[in-house]
This record gives sequence, C-alpha cells and structure tokens, in this order.
Amino acid sequence: MLSRTLVSLLALAAPGTALAADRECAQSPGKVLELCVSVEGGAARYEVKRGDVIVIAASELGLSFAGEPAARYTAITDARRSASDSSWEQPWGEQRLIRDNHAELAVTIAGDTAFNKAMQVTFRIFDDGIGFRYTYAGIPAGQAVGVTADRTQFRTKGSYQAWWYEGLGQERDEYLYTQTDARRITLAETPLTLKGDNGLYLSIHEAALVDFPSMLLQGDGAGKLTAWLMPWPDGVGAKKTGPFSTPWRTLLVGTTPGALADSRIELNLNEPNKLPDIGKWFKPGKYVGVWWEMHLNKTIWGSGPTHGANNDNVKRYVDFAEKYGFDGVLVEGWNQGWDGEWINNGDKFSFTKSYPDFDLPMLSAYAKSKGVHLIGHHETAGAVVNYENQLEAALDLYAKVGVPSVKTGYVRHSGDILDREGGKEWFAGQFMVQHHLKVIEAAAKRHITMDTHEPVKDTGLRRTWPNWVSREGARGQEFNAWGRPTNPPEHLTILPFTRMLAGPMDFTPGIFDLEHGKTLLTERNQSTLAAQLAEYVVLYSPIHMAADLPENYEKHLDAFQFIRDVPTDWEVTKTLASEIGDYVVVARQPRGGGDWYLGAITDEMARVLPVKLDFLAPGKKYEAQIYRDAADADYVKKPVAYTIEKRVVTSADTLDLALAPGGGQAVRFKLLK
Amino acid sequence: MLSRTLVSLLALAAPGTALAADRECAQSPGKVLELCVSVEGGAARYEVKRGDVIVIAASELGLSFAGEPAARYTAITDARRSASDSSWEQPWGEQRLIRDNHAELAVTIAGDTAFNKAMQVTFRIFDDGIGFRYTYAGIPAGQAVGVTADRTQFRTKGSYQAWWYEGLGQERDEYLYTQTDARRITLAETPLTLKGDNGLYLSIHEAALVDFPSMLLQGDGAGKLTAWLMPWPDGVGAKKTGPFSTPWRTLLVGTTPGALADSRIELNLNEPNKLPDIGKWFKPGKYVGVWWEMHLNKTIWGSGPTHGANNDNVKRYVDFAEKYGFDGVLVEGWNQGWDGEWINNGDKFSFTKSYPDFDLPMLSAYAKSKGVHLIGHHETAGAVVNYENQLEAALDLYAKVGVPSVKTGYVRHSGDILDREGGKEWFAGQFMVQHHLKVIEAAAKRHITMDTHEPVKDTGLRRTWPNWVSREGARGQEFNAWGRPTNPPEHLTILPFTRMLAGPMDFTPGIFDLEHGKTLLTERNQSTLAAQLAEYVVLYSPIHMAADLPENYEKHLDAFQFIRDVPTDWEVTKTLASEIGDYVVVARQPRGGGDWYLGAITDEMARVLPVKLDFLAPGKKYEAQIYRDAADADYVKKPVAYTIEKRVVTSADTLDLALAPGGGQAVRFKLLK
Repeated sequence: MLSRTLVSLLALAAPGTALAADRECAQSPGKVLELCVSVEGGAARYEVKRGDVIVIAASELGLSFAGEPAARYTAITDARRSASDSSWEQPWGEQRLIRDNHAELAVTIAGDTAFNKAMQVTFRIFDDGIGFRYTYAGIPAGQAVGVTADRTQFRTKGSYQAWWYEGLGQERDEYLYTQTDARRITLAETPLTLKGDNGLYLSIHEAALVDFPSMLLQGDGAGKLTAWLMPWPDGVGAKKTGPFSTPWRTLLVGTTPGALADSRIELNLNEPNKLPDIGKWFKPGKYVGVWWEMHLNKTIWGSGPTHGANNDNVKRYVDFAEKYGFDGVLVEGWNQGWDGEWINNGDKFSFTKSYPDFDLPMLSAYAKSKGVHLIGHHETAGAVVNYENQLEAALDLYAKVGVPSVKTGYVRHSGDILDREGGKEWFAGQFMVQHHLKVIEAAAKRHITMDTHEPVKDTGLRRTWPNWVSREGARGQEFNAWGRPTNPPEHLTILPFTRMLAGPMDFTPGIFDLEHGKTLLTERNQSTLAAQLAEYVVLYSPIHMAADLPENYEKHLDAFQFIRDVPTDWEVTKTLASEIGDYVVVARQPRGGGDWYLGAITDEMARVLPVKLDFLAPGKKYEAQIYRDAADADYVKKPVAYTIEKRVVTSADTLDLALAPGGGQAVRFKLLK
Repeated sequence: MLSRTLVSLLALAAPGTALAADRECAQSPGKVLELCVSVEGGAARYEVKRGDVIVIAASELGLSFAGEPAARYTAITDARRSASDSSWEQPWGEQRLIRDNHAELAVTIAGDTAFNKAMQVTFRIFDDGIGFRYTYAGIPAGQAVGVTADRTQFRTKGSYQAWWYEGLGQERDEYLYTQTDARRITLAETPLTLKGDNGLYLSIHEAALVDFPSMLLQGDGAGKLTAWLMPWPDGVGAKKTGPFSTPWRTLLVGTTPGALADSRIELNLNEPNKLPDIGKWFKPGKYVGVWWEMHLNKTIWGSGPTHGANNDNVKRYVDFAEKYGFDGVLVEGWNQGWDGEWINNGDKFSFTKSYPDFDLPMLSAYAKSKGVHLIGHHETAGAVVNYENQLEAALDLYAKVGVPSVKTGYVRHSGDILDREGGKEWFAGQFMVQHHLKVIEAAAKRHITMDTHEPVKDTGLRRTWPNWVSREGARGQEFNAWGRPTNPPEHLTILPFTRMLAGPMDFTPGIFDLEHGKTLLTERNQSTLAAQLAEYVVLYSPIHMAADLPENYEKHLDAFQFIRDVPTDWEVTKTLASEIGDYVVVARQPRGGGDWYLGAITDEMARVLPVKLDFLAPGKKYEAQIYRDAADADYVKKPVAYTIEKRVVTSADTLDLALAPGGGQAVRFKLLK
C-alpha cells in the first residue's frame, strides 16, 4: 500500500517532567481548540474550549475496577507533549489522502488504588476535534482485571438538540432517530450528534473499538453525558488483562453539520493498515442480488418451489450484472437452515451445505466466466457459537470456489438480551466486539472482504482491516419493504450526520419501483426516484447495491445509467450544504480525479438549493448530467417522475437544485477534454 | 383521630456497641426476611434474603456530595436493634387498622469524607418487605450541601420481568406500561414491579418523599438498578441543609401480586397524622362534574357560547348529584385564563376571577342547599410561580364560599424539561416536591382537601397529610376520550400492581357510553360496562368520580345503582386473585363492616375465575348483587351488554366470575340481617 508521510513527527516534544502542574493544557495545531486536564478534589478532569466558547466543561476521567473503590486522583505526575502532521493514503475510501495533523498531550495521573495508581491519558487535539484514550501500563502482564465503569463524562454547557434513539435493550442499531433537547437523553448510541444554541455541532463517538465493550452515553437529565459500557451478563463492562489501552473517546467540534461529516479524526485514531496488499484482491464496486425480491415476498429464503436462491434465478442476476457492468451478485438463502422459525434456530444454520437447487461451485464459475463474482452470505440469527464452530470451513469453502466477499447477519428478536444459557450477549458488548474481529481476521487470511449486518457500530477499523468494507448498523432500505413503518424522507437527511459519521453503510439504495404494490405511504418507499439515485453519492460505501429487481431497472434504463456510472471510490469528498433533518448536498470526486458527482436529498419539504460549483476545477468545462425530480414529482403522489437533462457548466456557475417533497437530485459532472 | 397502640415498642433494643462487626444482620418479626449490612473494600452494602433465596445481592449504600469525592466506607461503628409491633388507625383508607410490625437495625457507618464521616442507615424489616433511609446527623446545622448521587443499588439475582416505562424526559407519569426483561430497564419510575423466575414479586419504591427529589431507578443492562435523583437544572440531585434524613427506600417482597397490593409498608414508613381533626371536615365520597363533556368536545374549558362551567350547567350537575346521592360536583374551566393556548400561558391563569357566566358564591350556596359541595379546580399549566403567588388568595376564596375540596393540574407540553428562564423544572425534582407540599399545607390550614393531577408520585404522605386525598399520576380515564390511543384492557390489570402500590388514584371510572361516537377501537373505551363498575372496587381512592354524562347514567339506572351503592372507605381490603397484565380480583369491606364489595377485571381474554367467598363472615347470609358481562358481551363488539342478578350466598360458596373479553364484574354482598 502506498503511504506517504508528508511531514512526519515534528520534533516539538518536550521530555517528561517529574514536576508536572495540577493543570496541563494544549492547543490544536491551528489554535482552534484548547484542551486542559486537571486534578483537583480527588477527580481528574478535562475541558475543551473553542476560542472563548466552553465546549466541554470540566468533566471527569478515569476507569473503575472490580475489587477496588473508584479511585481518587491526586496529581498529574507526568506530562508529555508532541505534535505530528502527516498524510496517509486509504486503499479505498471517501477520500484518498487523509491528513493527520494533531498535537498530543499525554499525562500520567496518580490515583490512590492499586490499578489506578498510574493512569495515562493520551489526548490528540485536532482543529476539528479531540480524541483521548486511557492506558494502564502499570497493571502487570497477565493480571486479569474487570473494568466496572468508564467514568468519562461529556458535560456540555448551554442548550443542545440531539439526534438519538434509546440505546439500552436494543438488539441492533436499527431505529429512527428522534430529535430532542439533549437533556432528555437516557442512554444513546454513538456517534451522538448535538447542535447547540451556541452555533456548534458536536459528535461524540469512539475510535478503534477493539477487545472492549461498545461505549454508549448516559444522560443525567441536566446535560451531563457519562460513558456507559455495554456489559457482560455479570455486569462487568470490560474484561482485560494488564497492561492495556482503551479505545479512543472522540469529540468532533464544528460550526456546520458538514464539518462533522468531513472530519477524518475517526480514521486517524485507528492503527495503520494490516493488509497492505488489499488492493490486489479488493476493488470497490457495485452489486445486485437475490434479495429485494425476498423482502417483497416474491421468493423466499427457505427451500421449496419459491426458493429464491435457485440456479436459474442466480444466473439471471449474473447475466444482468454482466450486461450492466456490476461486479457482484449477492445471494441470500442459499444454505441449509432457513426453513421454519430460523430466527429461533440459528444453531441449525449450515454455512457449507447448500440447498439442492443451488450449485455453489457451478454458479461461482458461471459468474467468473462473465466477469462477475458471487457475494456469499452468512446469516447467524445471533447463534455466534454455531457460526464460530463453522467459520474456518465456511470461509475455506468460499475461498475454494472463488467467492471473495461475504455479507454476514446477526438478526435477533426484538430486545434479545443477555442469556448465558443460550450463549447470547448484548449485540455490542466485548464478547461480540471480539467475535466480529475474529471473523474479519479469518476472512482476511483468505482474502475475503466482509459486509456485516446487525454489526457492532463502526469505529474506523476499516483503516486497520480494510477487508471490513461495509456494515449495516442503521435503518436501511429493507425497512421500506417491511413498513413498520417505512423510513420517512428526513431519515436520509439525518443519517449523513449521525450513523454515517462512523463509516461506510451498506444501505442498499436504488429502488425504482417505489410503491411495490403498496397503497399506504408507511408501507412503501417514502422517496422519489431521483432521491434514490442521490443516495449513491450522499451515503458512502465502497460497495453499493442496486437493490431493486432487474426488470424494474430495465423499465428506466435512462435513470439506471446514473447507477451504472457512479463510482464507489473517491479522491475527495465535500459536504456542500446541509441542515440535519432537513436536507443534505454532497459532492465527491472519483478516485483519480476528473469527473465529480453530486447528490442532494431533502425531507418532506420541497426546496430549491443554489449550489456554487466552485469545487470543480477552474477553467475546465464539464457536462452536467442532471437526474432531477420532475416539476410535479412528489414522494406521496408521484414518486417516479424524473427528468434528465445535460448542460455544460464551469466552476463559476451556480446550480439551482430543485428538490420535490421527499425528493433528491443526482448529478454527474463529466469533465470535457 | 383515634390511634391505638396494640403493642408498643417491644423492649428488645440492645444498647449500641462501639465495637460493631463489619457485618450486621437482622430478621423480620416472622423470620421471613433477613437483612444484612456490611462494609468491605471501601463500600457499604446491604443484602436481603427470603429463606434461602437471595432477593437483593450485596448492593451499595450511601450518598455522594458536591465538593467531595464519593466516600469510601471503612467500618460499621455502631449498630442498634429494636423491634416494634403496633397498630394505628387511618382516618380514611383502603383499610382502617394498619399493623406496623417490624424489626429495626440502625447502623452508623464511617466514611472517609467530611460529609460522609458518620452515615446512619436505618433499616426497618417487615415480613413483607424492608425500608431504609439515610440520616446525616453529623452535618452541622445550617451547612448547605448538594447531594450529587444516591448510590443505593438494588441488585436482583436471576431473571425478572418488569412492568415499567421510560422515566427520563417525561413531563408527567401518564404512559402505558411495557413488560420486558428487567435487564432492559433504562430509567424507570417507581413503584417498579418485578416478577422473578424464582416465584417472587418485588416492588421498589420510596416512602415519605419530602424535600428531596423523586428517586427513579437506572438499569445497567445486567440486572442492577441504581437510585437516580431527578435533578435540579444544575444537575445537583438534592439541595439540603444539615442535619437531614432522606426519604425511605422501600422493597416489597411477596409470592403473589396481591401480596404487594396488600402490603402497608408504604404507610407505616410515613410520619403520623398531622391533622387529627380531619374526620370533622373530610368524609370519603363520590362526585360528578363538568368534565367528561369537555373531553368529548361537547363543551369547552374556555369562555364563549359553549363554555361548560356556566351557571345553568353546573346547577344541572348539582341537581343530578343531589338526586342520586353524590357528595361533590367538580367544575373545570370556571376561572379566567383558559382562552387560547393556555398550555403555553399558564401565568395568565387567575385563581380568583371567574368567567362572567359562573357565579361561584351563588353556585356554592346552591350546592350546599342541596347537600352537595362544589369541588374547585386549579389548573396551573406548570406555571408554578404564578400559582404560588395566588395560592393564599385562591384558597381563601374557596374557604370563604365553602368549597372544601380542590383538584389541581400541572399539564405541560410533552417532554417539557428544565428551563430556568421559564422557571420550569422536571415534574418531580426537589423543587416540585417542595411546591406540592406547600400547597397541601396551605390547604390544610383552611380545611381543604386536595386531589393533585400531574403530581409527583405518591409515597404515602396521605398518612401525614390526610387532606391530600387523591392524585392522578397514571394514564386515567381521560385517555379513553383522547384516543392517543385509548387504554387497552390490560392497563387496568397492571395498574393495581404498579401505580396503585403508591396510593389512591383519581382514575375517574364509570363510563357507560363506551363508544361515545367513535368507531375506531383505539379512540373509544376498550372496556365493558361491567368492567367500568368493577373499577370502583379494583382501584382505591377515597374520592371516586362518576365520570360520564348524567344522561348516560339515566339510560342505565339499574347498573348505575352499583355506583350509587359502592363506598369509598374501607375496613379491610383483600386482593383475591391476580396475574399482572391478565386479571385482578379485589374484595373490600366497607368501613364499619357488614357488607362486602368485589371487583374483577380481565384483559382482552375472556375468563372464568372461581372465587371462594371465604372472606365473608362465616355463618352469615349475604345477597350477592352481581353486575356482570352479558354472555355475548365483548369490549370490541358489544361493550354495554350486562346482566344484573341477585342470589343468596355464604362464606362456604364459590362464585364463578365469568368475564367477557375486556370485561369485568362488580358484586355487592349485602349482609342479610
């Protein structure tokens, strides 16, 4: 993998001083943010200012351990400063070159308990946010400890709105966001996005979640958020062995929603790529699959006359993929275990035995002969032990027949909770965090990429394990088939500033038959066709599905052309305009430069958004291929009405994006040579 | 007030010992429950066993204060034991004589912070539960302290189901209960009811909530519940001045739901009656009022041609009350301030100025001449300062014209939260706890009783202030007019074992026109007429409304007879059969003995419940006046169908209660002389 360090480790580091003060401060490289850490009255605290504005008021730090009381911190015994400004290249991503420009302040804080006697906190301060993590280097090697609480607080000042959903008791991250005063937060999943009366947008999240439970945020009714570790069944948060470090706790700070979306702190705080040859065995791309037809009840996952994953049907999708230039064909329901109440019988799933009407080696070879690959599928229904028992054999099979990519699933009943007898865990406790990485590593050995559904939230691990190409982890397109109810238009204007801050999402865009036989609005897509095209640009993933049925695309081949054209790998990404819950406009330049793509989506309100095209290269001409809502389009009454037009534009132009209610717009700016 | 001590303070108390052990235990009088308190590893803990079953595993105790770290507790420095078995008489209530039979263990625990250096915990151990409270006698008089956390934990063992709703961010206690695994609790209001796989039923609550914030219970995802104090806007839980005691934290333990309902620990832990002459100025009774017609949009609260509180209409209700033997007539919308968006303009309410078509002195005198009294009404819309400013004058006015009873209201917008500028607070923080008691005391001075809607939850304060006769504090009948949606049948089978454990509720039963013009089930009462009658027995309150319109009662005078007959003051109460969420059967004997009344309600399932009549006096004959669902009654299709029959029974008989879907049954057992 190409990785260039533009400016490596600036030698500003001062040697540690044995006589550190009770308060240590550091500023971000551009002096935008200031962070201070202090010890007083038994507590270690940090605070964050942006100019004169207090972003985080004095908030506690530290971990608590089983077997000892919560530590009182008594002094900062050491403080080390350094700075670094470098760039590195993503093998694939929303942006090729990532700049990592930060100041670092690493303090050692003395506490009065055995495990807390020397807690190190490493802060990295960027202009657009901070990250910090705890290191307990003094706990002896091999010493088992139980982390009972992460004491980290985030105390905002003033009044904030929050986009969130209740985080406890959920079996996955698939809920509509609610917007409330932040003081009404009970327990929120991260990334948690806040908008302040002070004009600031904040996002609280974590980076590099490895061998630790997922961190959620617990409210106190008065604006203080405290870290909450999704527990093991016995109530312990994390089970660790000394010495260890925690994931990074992160805070993004910006003055627009786009500043959050365009921040790369999350990736910068992850470890570098462990798979330097990934470029040889994975290319971003698009896929179709035997999937939406099951959600529409045209075929089924299980065996029988309406089994979707039969040889003829899969070949039909392969032929379609070849004809229109797609890379992959996903096939769900190919393996034994889907018959009956599979959700209660995940341990019946075989990941090596096909149904008799699905010939895996033949189909994989057939696909390859057409320049297409199959995408495998492993639905576990949460029966993780059964899956782990078969994991090596299952991946070996795919490696043998040449299936380079697998979608996994962990569907469970609503609110499925800790039950030791059944081997069940909260979906994002340490056990599941460990499990998912075990699968990723096993896949990487075989040059297989993974797309995890019902996953632990993303925390930037794709930097370290770039074969973890995408995840679900939010309410995706499938809800528009299920109707419990379907996603309202504003959902797509919230996702880019909440879930998507974590990383790529396999949303499965591109439904053209938006009503699919339903009459009730809450049982069909609440979207226009143009908005479906815009999703490919607005939502980042290196693999995007064209989710609808082949026959529905062939009815609108002119609009389908945008899906065929749009890439899934980018040189640069820019959020041009946005208001969370109202609208979003994103521009992306394909990797290697040249063209640009733009996607815009609105909520239930029609809007005209004037967008300056100053992101285009100056002096160049582009053909703008505009896929927009027709003048009478409306997600309720006329969702399919679209207009395609072409015109020549330059960076000096402004494009007025006219978006219908529930609509959107997709534009390819084709560089004219 | 009559108050007899049957067996006063048994002289079992041992003098305190300076060399207390690290662990002290005590058993309940009948040796049913054992409580132990211990100090180890910096933590003070308690545990509760019922025989060999661990009810509460070692769970932390203590408070934390602003300005100092969480205390480490180092030793039990003193332990005192005593026992008491006495009885006292309620001036009114669900049971006349209350036995208070408990062991007491009072320990002093040394902590290593200034405020926690000597924390006293007083446990009272009953056969059916425990209560405990903290006393900080060592904090100097006049020293202001901020309680930042109540560390009290309730760690159950094993698997429990819970009936609860999310407690944070609510503006009042009016939500449908959800039943989940207890590990899914985020933040639950109390009383919180749990049902264990071990056969135990638990209720966690508090008693004597005075000058302290309401305690809710925060889950950790693994079965541990921790006290959570509804905060002031600055995040502090309680603002106290030394020395002080907290309210009692209570735990009921039984093997049936009825054991929870029939426990009197809540009352026993409150201070004795401060109004010994209450019997001279308050008698339990029933009322009608200008109210349901407003919820049905037949008249309105505000002024104009459809103003409900006009002289003629009020006289109509007074005449009806006189004719059928009701004590009171509630009139809402009588005072100025209801016009326009009153919910946003609570500070516009006058509590002394009537609308011109409502002549308060004349109407009160008219009512008195008929042997009836008006029930006043003070809706504040949460504008507490405006109400407090007028409180003395408002109550003086009622005292002057002879209105002996007032209903108050604190309606706010959904999720109305802390906002210092508007003077708003969480509905059950310390500020509102103080406010409500201020109102009760001001009313008591004038011999006025109060019925608080949108209240702080009940914690047994009616023992101390028996002019606080009832409250709302749950989803009442009004939701059956609003339909957002209406209360499902199971609601009435959950209330008796959740909300009603706290104390009387002004549910306003007795709707006969169950469909009131609506066709959708979720917009009308989901109940049968017989179930409406049963509510008068199942739900305890010393004042019960006959909520429907006079003309609807006059269409069913035979069924109405039960409402006329049923008393609201009881000698004895017995929960005969129940399963939470399924059905409930309650028998009550009117104060003074003689007759008995029975009420039974089922959920959406039809049932036949055989009930042994062994609660009746042996050897006596009773006429059972049975008001039951007709054979074809059904809350969906035929809700009004009822049958009234009479037969002679004795205590040797069994009565088969046939309940329709969504139905119920009400029985008067009239003692035959």
